Amino acid sequence: MPQLRVAMAQIDTTVGDLDGNVRAVREWTRRAAEDGAHLVLFPETAVTGYPVEDLALRTSFVDASKRALGRLAAEIADDGHGELVVVVGYVDRAAEDSRPAAVGRPRGLPQNCAAVLHRGRVVGRYAKHHLPNYGVFDEYRIFVPGDDLLVVRVHGVDVAVAICEDLWQDGGPVQMAGDAGAGLLAVLNASPYERNKDDVRLELVARRAAEAGCPIAYVNAVGGQDELVFDGDSLVVAADGRVLARGPQFRESLVVTDLDLPAGVTTPGWEDRVHRVGVTEEPVPAYPARAGQVHEPLPDVADVHAAIVLGLRDYVRKNGFRSVVVAVSGGIDSALVASLACDAIGAENVVGISLPSGYSSQHSKDDAEELARRCGFEYRQYAIAPMVDAFLATVPLQGVAEENLQARVRGTTIMGLANQEGHLTLATSNKSELAVGYSTLYGDSVGGYAPLKDVPKTLVWELSRWRNAEAAARGEQPPIPESTITKPPSAELRPGQTDQDSLPPYEVLDAILEDYVEGDKGRAEMLAEGFDGTLVDSVVTLVDRAEWKRRQFAPGPKITFKAFGRDRRLPITSRWREPAASEPLAPPLPEHNAGPADEVDR
Amino acid sequence: MPQLRVAMAQIDTTVGDLDGNVRAVREWTRRAAEDGAHLVLFPETAVTGYPVEDLALRTSFVDASKRALGRLAAEIADDGHGELVVVVGYVDRAAEDSRPAAVGRPRGLPQNCAAVLHRGRVVGRYAKHHLPNYGVFDEYRIFVPGDDLLVVRVHGVDVAVAICEDLWQDGGPVQMAGDAGAGLLAVLNASPYERNKDDVRLELVARRAAEAGCPIAYVNAVGGQDELVFDGDSLVVAADGRVLARGPQFRESLVVTDLDLPAGVTTPGWEDRVHRVGVTEEPVPAYPARAGQVHEPLPDVADVHAAIVLGLRDYVRKNGFRSVVVAVSGGIDSALVASLACDAIGAENVVGISLPSGYSSQHSKDDAEELARRCGFEYRQYAIAPMVDAFLATVPLQGVAEENLQARVRGTTIMGLANQEGHLTLATSNKSELAVGYSTLYGDSVGGYAPLKDVPKTLVWELSRWRNAEAAARGEQPPIPESTITKPPSAELRPGQTDQDSLPPYEVLDAILEDYVEGDKGRAEMLAEGFDGTLVDSVVTLVDRAEWKRRQFAPGPKITFKAFGRDRRLPITSRWREPAASEPLAPPLPEHNAGPADEVDR
Repeated sequence: MPQLRVAMAQIDTTVGDLDGNVRAVREWTRRAAEDGAHLVLFPETAVTGYPVEDLALRTSFVDASKRALGRLAAEIADDGHGELVVVVGYVDRAAEDSRPAAVGRPRGLPQNCAAVLHRGRVVGRYAKHHLPNYGVFDEYRIFVPGDDLLVVRVHGVDVAVAICEDLWQDGGPVQMAGDAGAGLLAVLNASPYERNKDDVRLELVARRAAEAGCPIAYVNAVGGQDELVFDGDSLVVAADGRVLARGPQFRESLVVTDLDLPAGVTTPGWEDRVHRVGVTEEPVPAYPARAGQVHEPLPDVADVHAAIVLGLRDYVRKNGFRSVVVAVSGGIDSALVASLACDAIGAENVVGISLPSGYSSQHSKDDAEELARRCGFEYRQYAIAPMVDAFLATVPLQGVAEENLQARVRGTTIMGLANQEGHLTLATSNKSELAVGYSTLYGDSVGGYAPLKDVPKTLVWELSRWRNAEAAARGEQPPIPESTITKPPSAELRPGQTDQDSLPPYEVLDAILEDYVEGDKGRAEMLAEGFDGTLVDSVVTLVDRAEWKRRQFAPGPKITFKAFGRDRRLPITSRWREPAASEPLAPPLPEHNAGPADEVDR
Repeated sequence: MPQLRVAMAQIDTTVGDLDGNVRAVREWTRRAAEDGAHLVLFPETAVTGYPVEDLALRTSFVDASKRALGRLAAEIADDGHGELVVVVGYVDRAAEDSRPAAVGRPRGLPQNCAAVLHRGRVVGRYAKHHLPNYGVFDEYRIFVPGDDLLVVRVHGVDVAVAICEDLWQDGGPVQMAGDAGAGLLAVLNASPYERNKDDVRLELVARRAAEAGCPIAYVNAVGGQDELVFDGDSLVVAADGRVLARGPQFRESLVVTDLDLPAGVTTPGWEDRVHRVGVTEEPVPAYPARAGQVHEPLPDVADVHAAIVLGLRDYVRKNGFRSVVVAVSGGIDSALVASLACDAIGAENVVGISLPSGYSSQHSKDDAEELARRCGFEYRQYAIAPMVDAFLATVPLQGVAEENLQARVRGTTIMGLANQEGHLTLATSNKSELAVGYSTLYGDSVGGYAPLKDVPKTLVWELSRWRNAEAAARGEQPPIPESTITKPPSAELRPGQTDQDSLPPYEVLDAILEDYVEGDKGRAEMLAEGFDGTLVDSVVTLVDRAEWKRRQFAPGPKITFKAFGRDRRLPITSRWREPAASEPLAPPLPEHNAGPADEVDR
């Protein structure tokens, strides 16, 4: 059987940075060439970054993507690596639209494409067949689907090409590759991280390899892009399900595998919907094969931590920031955010601000200071009483309005410092708070990026404990003070307040939220799982009412099946309430530290 | 030819309020029956409201929609109107999925459907073929398409049914209706208002009527739903293009038309993809026909005003608010917002707050007070100096950070009053400001709803002048002080500041924004239109950098082809810059009153 050394370059590109992305592809192509690869695969739309969203509808952008690809092909040849066959994702334009003219068709017919580069030229082109349009994906909105298969002969081996969603749908390119007798199926991906998705992907790739009757080389992107984090974890799986290579998670890497593959036998040319391109017919002279590296995926919680750190680091870096500011209260959320920030960009680039009020406990102030000491970030303290008092002397606010005022004075202070000193402000709200609206809009929710946006409160504790244990195992000081982890959570906006004055215990709350938010389950389904009807009604009401607040919240990394943001699109104006149970509805839970719509009689 | 009295009920339903919507359909069916109608048409998904977004993915919601429809059919019969044939939109579930199993298929197979009700039963059902997935629409995400046509015989006339997007796409139900020899095509719509769209719709309906070879009765929804406003403007157009009836805009109405229609000749039953239902064969005894009413659409600017007023009123009402608060600065944006609020919900439900600083001019304070006097809303004034001074004593902020501080002190004050007194806060930013990021996040941009979100600054002036002229023509006092309209716009955050210190003249800015934002045009296209390259580069850079601010902004009514929000989906993290021109790039315009990312070196 012919041999082939296949390299998968799981790299971190930036949306819109065509020059930078082309430089990166060129550099990783050089590394693949130096490692003796015959074929190197790059992620989906590596040239443009992923996802490009409505930039795809701009003619100038698609033109620039095409030009960048041509330049890339030429430059790789100039570098002396023209013999190496490169498969890379970019955005192109459909030659024509075979379907009837219609309103709303993506302007300029953009396509999510893979190109095959060889000897300075683009020798083959494949357009993605299946355009995901669920969850965070809007590809049917911005792309026109392809329907041909591309098979390139590389050193005598027929390599078929597909892109991401093509693998998740039955039929289509996988089946076509099998029918066409491909010796290898190369799949370019930008598949966002999600807890436990690594297992799903491996199983999927193995199943499709069996269907296609050949190995699949699955290369995935790495890096953060707004609310998405790509985790790498590239794979080569044989038709019999053996994992021949597996890349690391959350970091750039070149994953190289030597494969014995069948020789292609069909004459290159066009068949029905299959475009065969002969790149090189001559098999590679026999050489000693190396075994592919198989990285173990990170265990649960460790992978969530790594995803958030990478998402945060890339948001800071790609948006041109150099430092962040966090309001550290002594509580668990801000402590974890500050610790994550230190892991992401270094403690020297983190500023923690403590903003105590008269309701702040001494242990809170002590814990905030201790956190700063352990992590080593710059720490300042400003008492908020003078500002709060100045407001109250002008407009007498009471109750929830006064609680919100304290939070907004803090928000205004933090944003002032961020503006003055050029920091990115990190919001500290977690997913449980965001779900039930337990935060003050323009107050504790201010910030440009929210590392815990998709992290339920119970997982906030798990992550904190995991991070401390990890430090201890390495002989380092655990970053988060133990008392911050163990004390009852409180917003400290009035004397003796705790979160559980207003909310059910977080274990219960998070379990209901998992059903309602991630599972899109209705009331009856939740009751069937044994949840108390009154509690379900209270939580569901809070979640429904907080939609307007969530709309004004910062982006943050998606780590669950369904994150708030583009992943879950619900109307603000909605009178839908899950059908009531037979038992009478209890009044909603008392609401504290809540925004304006909560005062409202709907 | 058989006669038929066709009523189109353009009504204002609320998303998720199934009980309320069913009551409304029942009530308007009664009115149609009392007016002697034989057929009454309701808008797309009138039972559930439109758009339901991801509620469609919830099993409990689809079940409730189906139950509500059955109840509606029964109740109409109970009311004694069972002989009247009712066509109404709702959400149903596909019986099965004929396509291969796949990831990402809408869970529970929801469909955007029309039902035909007669004698207490659902006698026919049609599922929308074409699912719009561009602009503000996400229907491919949440619905499964239908592919059958429904033809119901009503008093001997074959009435085919289609839904909204079905009309905008070539082929499909329109052609099928023509082939099936339909005598009338009934189209249920929820088509959002957009400036100048009424002409486009009329032309489209006329063209499709010619294609189908029969009249089209086009019923459209009315009302505000988050960022959309439905404008009614229902139409009956004959196959030869004559407008037989046209409803009013922006208000509920029953539009009734007597039509002479050909008798159906095919035997009811199933043909290839055409489901024929015989409801009533007997033609109506001849009766004296009335001419249909033809309302003239509102002239430009008047329609924009009406759209914003309806959008605002419905946002307030449907979200359970009773009053609004606006920060009135004496400037044109806040004056127009306050005037719109008075028009929408009555001056007695509007509170205006003046928050002067040391930089506020006397004419600003006078103008704000004069505005309140003319409009008749409650007016209060609080000087912000004590709060600003308290902040500055704690954290010494300068320059832009100090300007932002003033805006945030105002934001915090307004939100405190809103929380305390239960008002909805209206944000006053306009589309031009939002485009270039000329506002302070958590400052002047606070609020739950932004009436001018999609209104460019030049149109703010036009609307103000139009509103004043309208008042004068009615012999009323113009609401907006003349000096507010004529003075140069200023944020008044430092001495002598005007918007034009930082921005090009608004006529120029808005013209560039129309190309770049609404037209998705690239740099080269804009230069080809004669714009100065340096100016284009500056504006484009400002727009691109402000994406993160827009993401945290409130919803507001869409009135242009492309609004900010779900209509325009761009990444925050993006290094895409329109390709530079041959002339050297000028440094970006100076930035004032700007948020944190503006300090950043990208």
